[in-house]
Amino acid sequence: MSNARPVDNFVDRPTFVTHLECGLSGERYAADQLHGLSRAGRPLLVRYDLEGLQGAVSKDDLRQRPADIWRYREFLPVRRTENIVSLGENMTPLIEAPSLRAGTGGLFIKDEGRLPTGSFKARGLCLAVSMAKELGIARMAIPTNGNAGAAMAAYASRAGIEAYVFCPEDTPEVNVREIAAQGAKVWRVNGLINDCGKIVGAGKEPMGWFDCSTLKEPYRIEGKKTMGLELAEQFAWSLPDIIFYPTGGGTGLIGMWKAFQELKAIGWITGKLPRMVVVQSTGCAPIVKAWKDGVEHADLWPNAHTVASGIRVPAAVGDFLMLRAVRESGGFAIAVDDDAILAARNEVSRREGFLMCPEGAATFAAYQQAARDERLSPDETAVLFNCASGLKYELPRADASIDLTKPLDFDAMKKA
Amino acid sequence: MSNARPVDNFVDRPTFVTHLECGLSGERYAADQLHGLSRAGRPLLVRYDLEGLQGAVSKDDLRQRPADIWRYREFLPVRRTENIVSLGENMTPLIEAPSLRAGTGGLFIKDEGRLPTGSFKARGLCLAVSMAKELGIARMAIPTNGNAGAAMAAYASRAGIEAYVFCPEDTPEVNVREIAAQGAKVWRVNGLINDCGKIVGAGKEPMGWFDCSTLKEPYRIEGKKTMGLELAEQFAWSLPDIIFYPTGGGTGLIGMWKAFQELKAIGWITGKLPRMVVVQSTGCAPIVKAWKDGVEHADLWPNAHTVASGIRVPAAVGDFLMLRAVRESGGFAIAVDDDAILAARNEVSRREGFLMCPEGAATFAAYQQAARDERLSPDETAVLFNCASGLKYELPRADASIDLTKPLDFDAMKKA
Ligand SMILES: Cc1ncc(COP(=O)(O)O)c(C=O)c1O
Ligand SMILES: Cc1ncc(COP(=O)(O)O)c(C=O)c1O
Repeated sequence: MSNARPVDNFVDRPTFVTHLECGLSGERYAADQLHGLSRAGRPLLVRYDLEGLQGAVSKDDLRQRPADIWRYREFLPVRRTENIVSLGENMTPLIEAPSLRAGTGGLFIKDEGRLPTGSFKARGLCLAVSMAKELGIARMAIPTNGNAGAAMAAYASRAGIEAYVFCPEDTPEVNVREIAAQGAKVWRVNGLINDCGKIVGAGKEPMGWFDCSTLKEPYRIEGKKTMGLELAEQFAWSLPDIIFYPTGGGTGLIGMWKAFQELKAIGWITGKLPRMVVVQSTGCAPIVKAWKDGVEHADLWPNAHTVASGIRVPAAVGDFLMLRAVRESGGFAIAVDDDAILAARNEVSRREGFLMCPEGAATFAAYQQAARDERLSPDETAVLFNCASGLKYELPRADASIDLTKPLDFDAMKKA
Repeated sequence: MSNARPVDNFVDRPTFVTHLECGLSGERYAADQLHGLSRAGRPLLVRYDLEGLQGAVSKDDLRQRPADIWRYREFLPVRRTENIVSLGENMTPLIEAPSLRAGTGGLFIKDEGRLPTGSFKARGLCLAVSMAKELGIARMAIPTNGNAGAAMAAYASRAGIEAYVFCPEDTPEVNVREIAAQGAKVWRVNGLINDCGKIVGAGKEPMGWFDCSTLKEPYRIEGKKTMGLELAEQFAWSLPDIIFYPTGGGTGLIGMWKAFQELKAIGWITGKLPRMVVVQSTGCAPIVKAWKDGVEHADLWPNAHTVASGIRVPAAVGDFLMLRAVRESGGFAIAVDDDAILAARNEVSRREGFLMCPEGAATFAAYQQAARDERLSPDETAVLFNCASGLKYELPRADASIDLTKPLDFDAMKKA
């Protein structure tokens, strides 16, 4: 009889948030208070006392802690350990794929499908819900293409917060069911994610909702930032040369870029940062268009459609932050079509046994396209982000069968 | 331009396999050769030079390595690093569930759904396929309730080995499609897993298959052993008091028990081992019956049926090894019905936001039943195994919708 407990990261640690800051105007906002967008209608970024942080934790400290996002506690905003709402956000693996290499010397897939609720949305929503708990929020609402809603549902139920979720009616079926099973209220809407966003906006007052839309609350970015922290640590505080990221609202891209800036500021990484590549679908490519046009903000993409539902985001409030990261890093923005996405998924799963989600497959299609366009170099190591489990998406049926009442026909099996 | 590489466990390390041994008769077999069952028709167990191992690696060494199963390389049979076929077998999280506690002082769920292909079968098949590569096997076949076939398909494709998979026709649809997508040939069979096993047996000669059935090849247990190694390390080389395991073929239970014996032999753990609890469904409970009857081997369970398809295994070649682990550990065997399983899944997902697979939910139902039967103690810490992602199983539809052509009705939403 031991009452044994596992070693975990849920212990008190110093925290370093000083304030929040409008990503566009730089205007300051107080920490530890409820905030949505800035007065300029733009995302708020969390700022830290990085000098204090640097003195409080070392790379070696981190390595001694269990391998989940909470090992990076000093880089995160949650003040009180008891407010952490966790479902086990383990570090996600980097899978080498030498047989898929084209144009770069190294190729790795970071598999975010291993997180709670099967997608990287868990990183952001884990932080958003933990901060909601810390700030006393009782009711949250979110527009979603599926994965973010599933993550919010899970963490909100665990925290005892009411969750309202709105998704396009053609959201992958598994996601809609998962959201309901995990205790949220979910509605299918005959529109796209920005239409769902309008419902959330309209319901804030009458329903008492906190709006948890991408970049409309400040902490999902902080959760996504752990992708960058993890990558840096996994690459021994060096970094890969180029990162392909399937981009919708852009939290992940912006979060990683923020992580790299913070790590650079404390001197944990030095030298050139990775080229950040925005991957979108030709059916919905507002950021690619804005990048090509050389502008700072993207126009709403009309009639958005793509099999990669997670990146079907016609308008993103953080467009300028994405474009800034791409430009500052010397990266680029690239669109691939649905045929290329499905062919990429097929190639990776048949050749490497690794089933990507369509959004992840888009990064492989984009990588192949970039190789053909001679934008890659054999001195480079590339990382592709597979942001969700391939199991959350519709796959083709397999219909071969055997009838035990008949003799076994091995010749037929050989020809199968 | 860096050609950066992540730190990984794919480096040469000493290995310690001395021989294989029949689990029933103790008869010895040479290491590094192809083996199926022993001459007695029973599973072979891999044996190590534990003294050598003990001198070669320390707990502290392990902690410095990346958190995946290959950090335990010295405990595993693969001789040559280049034969490791990996898809990123990260350490799986332990999720505390205080709100679900009943009868024990501590309650944790080990979420095996985070592994490649969404189930703990990845552990076993990762090792089986790596050893198949090491031993030069070109073609593997497996009978499966779904998850094992999916894992074999993935690793075999990655290794360039041909994969043939046979599953009952009512196997969860996601699994069948996943198996095909990952490059294996798959057939739906109008029978149960033991009927599928007979097809594999019959095809060994004419098709040149290596039979990868549960416990019919020696290395899946070694992969599953990592669950025990991980648990011990996560609990700081102490262990929980009682483990609830959803039991079909039993590799996991047997593997964990083997891990504990090896850790005890090298002095890394001391004292009482956990009580091992076999959880089955009342619709298929051969091991529970054999345990109650006090016998060493189980009879085939007629007309097996349960929603928890992974534990629908009417006959298991390793029955005596499971029963031995349960008895030696002072554990017990318990069956729960499908209603209890689905109610348990519902309770855990709504209350904790954590979506279990039905087999995992069976362990929670069994835990609740054991509490009612006063078999648990408040001094104990319990671990439940959730062996697969809940996303691989059919969930109820959620049909609420919003029509944007009509005014928003928040009153209706409040009542939803
Ligand atoms: C699988 C997947 N990939 C990519 C994205 C886009 O993520 P972000 O909002 O960070 O751009 C999403 C968002 O829904 C997603 O679900
Ligand atoms: C989800 C799940 N749980 C439990 C089991 C039983 O595993 P074992 O063969 O180790 O008893 C299986 C096997 O298919 C499974 O898929």
